Amino acid sequence: MLFSKLSCDEFIGVLASKAPVPGGGGAAALVGAVGTALGNMVGSLTLGKKKYAGVQDDIIALKERADALQGRFLTLMQRDAEVFEPLSRAYGMPKETDAEKAEKSRVMAGALRECCAVPLDIMRCCCEAIDLHEEFAAKGTAIAISDVGCGVICCKAALQAASLNVFINTKSMEDRALAEANNAEANEMLARYAVKADQIFADVAARFV
Amino acid sequence: MLFSKLSCDEFIGVLASKAPVPGGGGAAALVGAVGTALGNMVGSLTLGKKKYAGVQDDIIALKERADALQGRFLTLMQRDAEVFEPLSRAYGMPKETDAEKAEKSRVMAGALRECCAVPLDIMRCCCEAIDLHEEFAAKGTAIAISDVGCGVICCKAALQAASLNVFINTKSMEDRALAEANNAEANEMLARYAVKADQIFADVAARFV
Repeated sequence: MLFSKLSCDEFIGVLASKAPVPGGGGAAALVGAVGTALGNMVGSLTLGKKKYAGVQDDIIALKERADALQGRFLTLMQRDAEVFEPLSRAYGMPKETDAEKAEKSRVMAGALRECCAVPLDIMRCCCEAIDLHEEFAAKGTAIAISDVGCGVICCKAALQAASLNVFINTKSMEDRALAEANNAEANEMLARYAVKADQIFADVAARFV
Repeated sequence: MLFSKLSCDEFIGVLASKAPVPGGGGAAALVGAVGTALGNMVGSLTLGKKKYAGVQDDIIALKERADALQGRFLTLMQRDAEVFEPLSRAYGMPKETDAEKAEKSRVMAGALRECCAVPLDIMRCCCEAIDLHEEFAAKGTAIAISDVGCGVICCKAALQAASLNVFINTKSMEDRALAEANNAEANEMLARYAVKADQIFADVAARFV
């Protein structure tokens, strides 16, 4: 099933069901795409406007990056589902004999690595999206500034949601060096970009008081 | 155009375009629906599990409320677009003569009232969704607890995003009593439920350290 081709209400329905996928990671990727698209929209509304003639080339470049990010988010929405199924199977493998234990451990290690790699990549995309919102806030049309605030706060939620999918999987990893490296990268992105997103949101909100 | 019937990637595409709708309000409603569906999924995964036999009736009731909320969010996604178009037309009305000024002011007042009512309703749904996540965290299956965290943080982002759509419209209202009443309700929801959502998220995240 290609999740990005489901209608929005179908996606909501399958997300709410007991089907193992999509889950929190796929939802985070979709919310990241929604957030990025809001920033991108502010760019679209700025194109061709005389008042913003000085930043047209910048806006075109920002929009290209936003388009690419939206595509990456939608690909990652699918990837998150693809990597979950092997992990789900691995949890069910027998571990009676030493040989079975060794095999299960080997398969689990590979599956967990992938199940961390995807939400980490979602997080990297969210950080890039938050950087883009900073530029859309500075250069985009003032009439759509509220949408920059909406977009950046969605990207922050996607960042935080994806981080839980890193942490739940690193917790089960036997390779503690990899687990700690993944956790460190996730924590660094959270520390830096959650604050940055809140700042951009607060700057937008301050325009309406 | 019925936005909930667009595929996810089509919705992202039209959101990123210069089309006047959907905008931040519609995106907030979709993100609220995604968040609610994640809590609902934890309920779905809890149904029929022996270990959770004692809470089956509670889970069924919570899931019914979550289903209803998802439907309200998707309806509000559409409503947000419907109420924006009259406002957009009102901004373009002539105001040369006194009669034109009076007419424009009258039409604007009605359009602004609607354009605040919809995001306020999205915010009320987000608050209810955050309350549901509190119960899913307490009663739902532990294996999907990360999804409660993902869900609640999406609902928080939807709450914050919708608030900007209240504030941008109250700012233009001539009826300051209504504007202040709307702002007060929005600020109250933000103050109470952003904190509550963060607490639920932090409690979930604490399970993975």
